Amino acid sequence: MKASAMDYDVTMAARVSTIGSASAGREDTSPGLINFLMRDRHGSPFEHTSFTFLIEAPIFVAREHFRHRVGWSYNEESGRYTELKPVFYTPSPERNLVQVGKPGAYTFEPGTEYQQGLVNYVLTGAYRDAYADYESLLEKGVAKEVARMVLPVGIFTSYFATCNARSLMHFLSLRTISEGSTFPSFPQREIEMVAEQMEEIFASHMPITHAAFVRNGRVAP
Amino acid sequence: MKASAMDYDVTMAARVSTIGSASAGREDTSPGLINFLMRDRHGSPFEHTSFTFLIEAPIFVAREHFRHRVGWSYNEESGRYTELKPVFYTPSPERNLVQVGKPGAYTFEPGTEYQQGLVNYVLTGAYRDAYADYESLLEKGVAKEVARMVLPVGIFTSYFATCNARSLMHFLSLRTISEGSTFPSFPQREIEMVAEQMEEIFASHMPITHAAFVRNGRVAP
Amino acid sequence: MKASAMDYDVTMAARVSTIGSASAGREDTSPGLINFLMRDRHGSPFEHTSFTFLIEAPIFVAREHFRHRVGWSYNEESGRYTELKPVFYTPSPERNLVQVGKPGAYTFEPGTEYQQGLVNYVLTGAYRDAYADYESLLEKGVAKEVARMVLPVGIFTSYFATCNARSLMHFLSLRTISEGSTFPSFPQREIEMVAEQMEEIFASHMPITHAAFVRNGRVAP
Amino acid sequence: MKASAMDYDVTMAARVSTIGSASAGREDTSPGLINFLMRDRHGSPFEHTSFTFLIEAPIFVAREHFRHRVGWSYNEESGRYTELKPVFYTPSPERNLVQVGKPGAYTFEPGTEYQQGLVNYVLTGAYRDAYADYESLLEKGVAKEVARMVLPVGIFTSYFATCNARSLMHFLSLRTISEGSTFPSFPQREIEMVAEQMEEIFASHMPITHAAFVRNGRVAP
Repeated sequence: MKASAMDYDVTMAARVSTIGSASAGREDTSPGLINFLMRDRHGSPFEHTSFTFLIEAPIFVAREHFRHRVGWSYNEESGRYTELKPVFYTPSPERNLVQVGKPGAYTFEPGTEYQQGLVNYVLTGAYRDAYADYESLLEKGVAKEVARMVLPVGIFTSYFATCNARSLMHFLSLRTISEGSTFPSFPQREIEMVAEQMEEIFASHMPITHAAFVRNGRVAP
Repeated sequence: MKASAMDYDVTMAARVSTIGSASAGREDTSPGLINFLMRDRHGSPFEHTSFTFLIEAPIFVAREHFRHRVGWSYNEESGRYTELKPVFYTPSPERNLVQVGKPGAYTFEPGTEYQQGLVNYVLTGAYRDAYADYESLLEKGVAKEVARMVLPVGIFTSYFATCNARSLMHFLSLRTISEGSTFPSFPQREIEMVAEQMEEIFASHMPITHAAFVRNGRVAP
Repeated sequence: MKASAMDYDVTMAARVSTIGSASAGREDTSPGLINFLMRDRHGSPFEHTSFTFLIEAPIFVAREHFRHRVGWSYNEESGRYTELKPVFYTPSPERNLVQVGKPGAYTFEPGTEYQQGLVNYVLTGAYRDAYADYESLLEKGVAKEVARMVLPVGIFTSYFATCNARSLMHFLSLRTISEGSTFPSFPQREIEMVAEQMEEIFASHMPITHAAFVRNGRVAP
Repeated sequence: MKASAMDYDVTMAARVSTIGSASAGREDTSPGLINFLMRDRHGSPFEHTSFTFLIEAPIFVAREHFRHRVGWSYNEESGRYTELKPVFYTPSPERNLVQVGKPGAYTFEPGTEYQQGLVNYVLTGAYRDAYADYESLLEKGVAKEVARMVLPVGIFTSYFATCNARSLMHFLSLRTISEGSTFPSFPQREIEMVAEQMEEIFASHMPITHAAFVRNGRVAP
């Protein structure tokens, strides 16, 4: 994890609008100014910042993450050039397993003990079998990019993701569920878990910006 | 498939640079001008065009496609909201299966008859078993977004992809292999197959632009 | 002006999420679905559309317009390659001339008759003198790209701007003032005049999408 | 000026492709790997870097700069919210003033002593008069955003520009002229002067990447 992101970067960039190049020398991080920018959707001052995350997540999460295009850069482990490792995702017991309602308005409820056991049993077996097939194909000389076709989307991948504070807030507004949000959001729990960790890092580097984000209904400026 | 893309769009946009708004009335599609723009990397005139493709491809291809961020828009079938259909990818006999060389300089060679048979046999079995697991989980009331974790990246997905001629040429330059290219490219064969179909459509709508692209070493302007 | 943009493009793209590739055949334009997408910020289905505008506006307006980067393409008349024509912007009598309040919360009020006359008189004279200087320098063989340095930002330029419905709505939400908007906006009147014309074209091509945009507080999805 | 950009960022991101998350611990900056990435157009590893420049330049330069959309963020001094200062651009005696050839293939030659004197004389007078008009309008209570219409594009503005190494290289390839470039470029001298200073900063922070850029014909990967 690498970050070049401080609340000061935001005020510095914003002040160039009103006081020109002299703004570069002012060492202020006015919470009032940051809150004003957030509230009135002056988004560009938040872009002069950079966060680089190293993320390990299942492919189905990476697929959702990579849909974020604007202000995001990615590099991911390649199933063409490397042999993927047998690390797979299985939901923890707290993960809600049952979907209720209709498309666009799903909610999730805990599964029964039987459903929890079944998910665990079926995933474990399916992952083991798929990886055995993968290894068999590799052993017989089949190219990695072909052999990997059998691997399930529950396998872990790793990737670097770089973004700025504005694109990060946009991501957080869509990929977390939080009381007090102006807009609803419907993330799959697994990407929300990634987003929560990213939000902690964001809050620790840019506490005033993060507070303004929360205070203004988690709407990215 | 939908396109709003003609060679005329390019010359019209380019001529605004030199003759101002009057350019909008000129109905020319000068091959010389288009070739000049391509050669000297004046890329923006190629952006006032739009292609929308409906693509059906395995997830591992979609994953590569979605890495193209600039000038691309996507909507994809959702494994959270729909039950995915049992359609899977198996390489045809012509597909080279053996990887030779080292990272960054791979080439591919045909597999033996045994390898071809094995790939077919293993993939078919793995796909069948994974889909049976998927159906079992769904039957027992497990949410689609959880059950799909067992599904392999060889399963088909469908998506709309919209781009302009400039972003399309950039895609083609990286995702096809062609003699006469200025730069090398290393696409996986399966995304190249998608790219080849897209290139045909491109060439039919914008023949002069496509010819200039080929003539200038398949470098996107 | 060229557009490849219909309400149907939106529903077609949205339905691929839930019914896969079969969506391509359905000829519906459900206002309910479009309103749902707008309300819950499912923005990507609005991107499979394309509008190309030919705009004639003063440089100070073009400068604001070109700040919109995402989903926008531009080609503009060049002051390096063409001799700019003596067409300049002067505010009409209805244009408010006096700024009241403080940065971030300005409002504008009509000028006095004297102020109106003065603005007209000073601008006209300044434009005439600057253009005479420009012509003198050109006559003496000075390069266009040097001679244009004297030209004021009130001179007209022309440019093509291409965007999709999502990026257009983002532009409209920031560059128009409208009752019923969820968020405040502070456009300069001159770019708002451009935006108003673009909004008319948008509404005529995508009436259901435009209605949903207005109904949902003019927040771009 | 602020930078979070090292050659190590590039190799770290590139190695995640081949060795997964373990790459984050390797402290290497292999020139061979960086050169390979540059040569074969693997551009994404160069994006996990960030440069923030504070630039003071005439408006006609800022206009060209802001055409760079992808991977660039800007905040600029506002002529709506601040009174612009009377700082204007006049070419130095070394600046070539005469344009020879035709559009697309211009070259520039020094002006005569008379032309040099004339440019200096006319610009100085035009700038002084325009600024006097600007001040008159402000004095009489006319809004800044209206008064500024008289100001010439030769007036200085200041802005923050943030980019990553990949978008910076793309900028440099178009906005500098250099022997050994694979592609021709035609920047106006004034933006090239800005680009040259940016290139020095780039080279000092990422010497291996910069060397690979030069060695590979100044083509952005």
